[in-house]
Amino acid sequence: MPRVSQDQLDARRHEILNASRTCFARFGYNGATVHRLEEATGMSRGAIFHHFRDKEHLFLAVAEDDAATMAEIVARNGLVQVMRDLLERAGNSEGDTAGWLGTQLEVAHRRRTDPAFAKRWAQRSAAIADATRERLQRQRDAGVLREDVPVEVLTQFLELAYDGLVLHLATGRPAGELAAVLDVVEDAVRRH
Amino acid sequence: MPRVSQDQLDARRHEILNASRTCFARFGYNGATVHRLEEATGMSRGAIFHHFRDKEHLFLAVAEDDAATMAEIVARNGLVQVMRDLLERAGNSEGDTAGWLGTQLEVAHRRRTDPAFAKRWAQRSAAIADATRERLQRQRDAGVLREDVPVEVLTQFLELAYDGLVLHLATGRPAGELAAVLDVVEDAVRRH
Repeated sequence: MPRVSQDQLDARRHEILNASRTCFARFGYNGATVHRLEEATGMSRGAIFHHFRDKEHLFLAVAEDDAATMAEIVARNGLVQVMRDLLERAGNSEGDTAGWLGTQLEVAHRRRTDPAFAKRWAQRSAAIADATRERLQRQRDAGVLREDVPVEVLTQFLELAYDGLVLHLATGRPAGELAAVLDVVEDAVRRH
Repeated sequence: MPRVSQDQLDARRHEILNASRTCFARFGYNGATVHRLEEATGMSRGAIFHHFRDKEHLFLAVAEDDAATMAEIVARNGLVQVMRDLLERAGNSEGDTAGWLGTQLEVAHRRRTDPAFAKRWAQRSAAIADATRERLQRQRDAGVLREDVPVEVLTQFLELAYDGLVLHLATGRPAGELAAVLDVVEDAVRRH
C-alpha cells in the first residue's frame, strides 16, 4: 500500500507550482534561487525536486500550467473576456495575477535570451491561438463577426492586443483607459 | 586647444551606444558583462566608462536614445507607421531592429524586477505617448479620426497594439498575418 495517495501527490505538486509562480514572477528566472524557492514553498529542495527534475522543468511546468488554464478560459469565454478579467484582477492587485503576468514576461525574456528554451516553448504555445481561432470561427458561423477580414487575421489581432496588455500590466503601468480600449478591440472584430 | 573635438566625442559616444544596444539585446542586462561590452564596442572599459558613469547609466542612455528617436518618428508619421516599419525591418532581419526590440523588452524586464529602475524610467517614457496623442488630436481636428471614442482612448489603443507588436517580434515569433493585423488596427481609429 502506498503511503501517499495520488491525490496527495497532485495536491503537493499544485502547491509547489503556485508558490514557485510567485517566486519566479517576483525575482525572475535567474533571481529565483533554489533557496528562495524553498522559502516560497516552505519545502526543502529535496521535496521540490522530487516533483520536478530541476528548476528549468519547474519553470516550464508553471508556464505550461498557465497556458493550459488560459486556453480553457479562451475556449469558453473568448480572448477579449480573458483580457477584461486580467485587467480587473490587476486593478485589484490580486497576488495571483501579478504572479501570472510575471510568468508571461519571464517566458518572453527567456524566449529571447535562451534559444533552447525558445525551441521547447514554441512547441507548447499553440493551444491559446488554437482556442482563439476556433471560437472566432464559431462566431463567424453565427454571423456576429465582421466578414471582410479573414478569421486568421482577427485571431492574430486579438493576440496582439493580448500581448500588449500583458506587457503593459506586467511592467506595472497604470490601467488608464484600458477598459475602454478593450471595447475598441472588441468592436474591431464585430460585424456592424 | 582640446585634443578631441566635441564632434569626435559625440561620434564616439554614439558608437558606444549602438554597439552596446546590440550587446544588451543579445545577452540581457545581466548577461551583458563589462567584458562583453568591451568586445562589442571594441573599446576598453576605461574608454566606455569615460563616456557613461556605469553599466546602469549606459543602459538607460541606450533606452532613452531609442525612446527619443521613436517619439520623433511618431510625431512625423504616426504610431501605426512606426509599427509597419518595425514589422518590415524585423522581416528583413536587420541587425539594428533586433537590437532595438531587445532593448524594449529588456526595459520591460527591468521595470518589473528593479523598482528603482521602474521609478527612473517612468519619468522618461511619456514622450512617445505625448507624440501619439498630439498626432491623433491633429487627425481629429482634420476630421479623419472616428469621433465616438475619446482621443485618449485611441492613443492607448495604439500603444496597446505597439506593445503587443514589440512583445511578439522581440520573442522571435514569425510575422504571420501582422501586416493585415495593422490594417485592422489603423481601420479601428479611422472615421468611416
